[in-house]
Order: sequence, then C-alpha cells, then structure tokens
Amino acid sequence: MKQATFYHAGCPVCVNAEKSVADGLDPKKFNLKSIHLGEEKKEVSTAENLGVQSVPALVIEGQVFHINHGADLEALKN
Amino acid sequence: MKQATFYHAGCPVCVNAEKSVADGLDPKKFNLKSIHLGEEKKEVSTAENLGVQSVPALVIEGQVFHINHGADLEALKN
Repeated sequence: MKQATFYHAGCPVCVNAEKSVADGLDPKKFNLKSIHLGEEKKEVSTAENLGVQSVPALVIEGQVFHINHGADLEALKN
Repeated sequence: MKQATFYHAGCPVCVNAEKSVADGLDPKKFNLKSIHLGEEKKEVSTAENLGVQSVPALVIEGQVFHINHGADLEALKN
C-alpha cells in the first residue's frame, strides 16, 4: 500500500478535489489520510516540510501534487 | 463509471502526475483516458473548451483539476 495524504482547508476548491480525485484513488493501492490544516494547525509545518505550498494538495509517497488552488499555506499559519 | 481524461504533454511533471494520480484512480469507478496534446493537436481545442489551462490536468465529469504545472496550453497550440 502506498501512503497518500490529502491536505486541505475545507474550502470549496478543496472539497471538490477531495471528492473527485483523492476519494477516487484505488483503495487497493492507497492508504488515504485526509488532513484539515485549518483544524490541525500542528500539521501545517509537516505539510510545509513535505513541500506543500498551497491546498488542496495530495502527497503520494513523498511527491507533492498541488491540485488547483484554494489557499496558500502561508494563510493557514495564523 | 465516471469518465476521467488525463491531458498531458509527455513532460516530466506530466509523467509523474499520470503515474501517481491518474493511474492511481480506482478502475472500478473510472473509465480513464490519457491524451498527449503534443501528439494529438486536434484535442487541444477540446481541452481548452473544457477549461484546461495547463498540463497536466485531469478532467473528471467536466470538472478540471490542474495538477502542478508542466506547460501552458498556449504553448501546445503551435
């Protein structure tokens, strides 16, 4: 199983990406975790260290895929 | 089955997105088609009409998800 982490902030762009792309990943291949960075502030620095610059973003095995643009990570730091 | 179309141009960013995200979609949920816009020039206008602005992009049921940024669609028109 590959680890897939979907970082979001509950925004409409994020919700669309989660419903269509992240939730569309094959459950036989991926262990999918969804993290709301607006609610789990301590995860923001983890996401930043992984290379996440904006949400929504999907991190698969260390590779960051920014999907459209909902909000910059900077805006989620405060 | 939902229709998912992955538009790309063979670039490294595109290849990564295809291998990890598009090919990661659940084959039980999606009918996945991959279109190389550098080779299938006549599809560029179709992609543009769907709202694709850059590649790689994944279009699921009419919704466009730009995944990172490999090349602008404009650059593929000539």
